[in-house]
Amino acid sequence: MSNRKRIAIVGVGLIGGSMALQLHEKKLSAKLIGVEANQEHAEQALEYELVDEFLPLEEAIAAAEVIVLAIPVNKMVSLLPQVLDRVTDQIVFDMGSTKAALIEAVKEHPKRGRYVATHPMWGTEYSGPKAAQRGAFEGKAVILCNTHESDPDALDWIKKMYEKIGMRLVEMEAKAHDLHVAYVSHISHITSFALANTVLEKEKVESAIFEIASAGFESTVRLAKSNPEMWVPIFLQNKENVIDVLTEHIDQLTKFKESIQSNDSKGLQALIDDANKIKRIIK
Amino acid sequence: MSNRKRIAIVGVGLIGGSMALQLHEKKLSAKLIGVEANQEHAEQALEYELVDEFLPLEEAIAAAEVIVLAIPVNKMVSLLPQVLDRVTDQIVFDMGSTKAALIEAVKEHPKRGRYVATHPMWGTEYSGPKAAQRGAFEGKAVILCNTHESDPDALDWIKKMYEKIGMRLVEMEAKAHDLHVAYVSHISHITSFALANTVLEKEKVESAIFEIASAGFESTVRLAKSNPEMWVPIFLQNKENVIDVLTEHIDQLTKFKESIQSNDSKGLQALIDDANKIKRIIK
Repeated sequence: MSNRKRIAIVGVGLIGGSMALQLHEKKLSAKLIGVEANQEHAEQALEYELVDEFLPLEEAIAAAEVIVLAIPVNKMVSLLPQVLDRVTDQIVFDMGSTKAALIEAVKEHPKRGRYVATHPMWGTEYSGPKAAQRGAFEGKAVILCNTHESDPDALDWIKKMYEKIGMRLVEMEAKAHDLHVAYVSHISHITSFALANTVLEKEKVESAIFEIASAGFESTVRLAKSNPEMWVPIFLQNKENVIDVLTEHIDQLTKFKESIQSNDSKGLQALIDDANKIKRIIK
Repeated sequence: MSNRKRIAIVGVGLIGGSMALQLHEKKLSAKLIGVEANQEHAEQALEYELVDEFLPLEEAIAAAEVIVLAIPVNKMVSLLPQVLDRVTDQIVFDMGSTKAALIEAVKEHPKRGRYVATHPMWGTEYSGPKAAQRGAFEGKAVILCNTHESDPDALDWIKKMYEKIGMRLVEMEAKAHDLHVAYVSHISHITSFALANTVLEKEKVESAIFEIASAGFESTVRLAKSNPEMWVPIFLQNKENVIDVLTEHIDQLTKFKESIQSNDSKGLQALIDDANKIKRIIK
């Protein structure tokens, strides 16, 4: 890991920008080259010194030893094959929230080995380069998918890079990844969006309803501020798993509703006793 | 507010214990007398010096100038009339999460005027005297209900007391209160309990599912650690409002499900754009 590398970051927003800060901070980068379709974001990223310069995609790929993709997952699926078309021996990795469709899209690509599929389990409800944070990703899990399809040298560099950032490596097949994240990430965003809509609808007739909102409400609703450009493609790409978890979650809510409707205090107690077992996971 | 008062706290748990700390800290109490059915909690409360002594309820009422009720709302409904039976000119207030049933229970009581119905909008997912916090309630809203039914001197002392603690006073009729809290507090707890159960059910077949859970998941699920002894009676006492908000919330989740199922990215974008309006409320 002694050699710093020239690294191109495609998409310098919350995730790409936070990654840029870490790559610089951990002395992993010799140079950071941004690629950004959004001109305002590019200007902000330079102002915050997230990257050294911006280049068009082709020039950035040619100038870099490592290429990071941190763009919405629908754009990733079309862009990754094009990036691989242009690489020689560079390492390419993505930081997206879904994995099966992306890995499928490059399955037969002659440069498949240069690509490592990754998903660091960190984010916030904010977006854009302004939202980039120092020290992001540290102490969190990063999932590496279908590592047997990557070249050993590329995989080796990616693993050491994430370890240097302070992440815990978890290996998983893409399908298992997409199922797991539906349950511990995607559903949390949907419940939060839906809860915001539930209360905002009520506000139309009860205008002072938020006046008394407390920390508990804020905690369950904060993810509702998340960016649709990022989340719509995630839900659609992970459609089957997301529908499954949503169906199960609606069933669980219906159990609460039925217990309350029938004044079944013992049933309600049992449902909450079950839910309290989350204490084993969340301290 | 120069005179400190002898104050009895019935129920020295998370809420009663945190109130005891504030009453002492803000120099509102001359003496703090605890009343506690749970012997272990009483011992812990003395160990943490939350109150000066414990007395049986009748003796505590006789010895106090102010009586605070901080017990589950089902117990409150049966206890409040009994407490009012024994007061002469003491001030009685409760800190419960539902108000209509409680106020109805003492509507015709000859000592109704001595009682002030209050609900400070603060709590955590923990319970018992160990969970009591210094500085609790500060900067939050406290709802006072049906204040026209309380004697002016009692209401006046309660208002000054909450102001001294640093709370923002909001007056509301009991029915409006119960509707509002269903939307900004009770539903958050139900979604959190149901989300915990959804993922804990999945864990039975996917044992490593929590290994990759991140801060977003934790935020939406932390209220699922809340105590059933407190929450079962709240949901049942506020049944009609809770059923209404649950029905609406399930409808909102179903909209997400249908948009995803039909690959309706514009519909999904519109739902998330709506939810993003919560930024106006939650900074």
